Amino acid sequence: MPTTREPRPRPGSRRPARASLADGHLADVYSAACPSRQLLDRLADKWSVLIVGRLERGPQHFGALRDGIDGISEKMLTQTLRSLEHDGLVLRQGTAGTGRKVVYSLTPLGRTLREPIALLRTWAESYVDQVERARAEHERAAG
Amino acid sequence: MPTTREPRPRPGSRRPARASLADGHLADVYSAACPSRQLLDRLADKWSVLIVGRLERGPQHFGALRDGIDGISEKMLTQTLRSLEHDGLVLRQGTAGTGRKVVYSLTPLGRTLREPIALLRTWAESYVDQVERARAEHERAAG
Repeated sequence: MPTTREPRPRPGSRRPARASLADGHLADVYSAACPSRQLLDRLADKWSVLIVGRLERGPQHFGALRDGIDGISEKMLTQTLRSLEHDGLVLRQGTAGTGRKVVYSLTPLGRTLREPIALLRTWAESYVDQVERARAEHERAAG
Repeated sequence: MPTTREPRPRPGSRRPARASLADGHLADVYSAACPSRQLLDRLADKWSVLIVGRLERGPQHFGALRDGIDGISEKMLTQTLRSLEHDGLVLRQGTAGTGRKVVYSLTPLGRTLREPIALLRTWAESYVDQVERARAEHERAAG
């Protein structure tokens, strides 16, 4: 990774601390080899954003998630839940004695994702009309 | 779209207003047909996140963007910049008389994306070590 150790943020700085990795580097998404880049790649994905957004409301069954996210396939939902579970962001809990009552919830680590993901989602919902107007103007100018 | 008109957020509510679309529906990323879903899909992309993050610092030449984003190909950078430009988020300006001095900058609309995108990026850099520990535990438990 090309990054070097950086000074600690000054007191009062609002920048969150970057994680210090096993090799002594600070995490840097701009470095292709940094694990934070791969993490960003997995999270910067519409299905992850929509699933975490749904789980903000509390634990959910698979079917409720599927029905709440228009257009998601069961295969994609299964894969994305597994990946979120693997990363420690989602907890999958089954009720003893039955295979059907599996519920998914955010872990404490997953709950730290709520704010960034909610902001991205609400940005899309708030500004989509302005983006559509910009696009129409761009097409008029180009055509 | 399955959404219906919703009451306006109560005064003091921190939820940003959703855009009201041409057909009278409120934008809803959970609806597959809503234009805000396609917008979320394009923005929830690591290259968009990294490019907008770079442009936060001010206007940049193509070469500076390419060199600052480790691992991006020129083709991917060109495509993503074009898509951001088409959506009215990035402005491409050339200096008259020369084809080489093109600079890219965020438009006022693009600047509204800075906060959501910075939060996602810094989340990945801050929590990657916790995600890696969770993943290692998950693998031990599964193996």
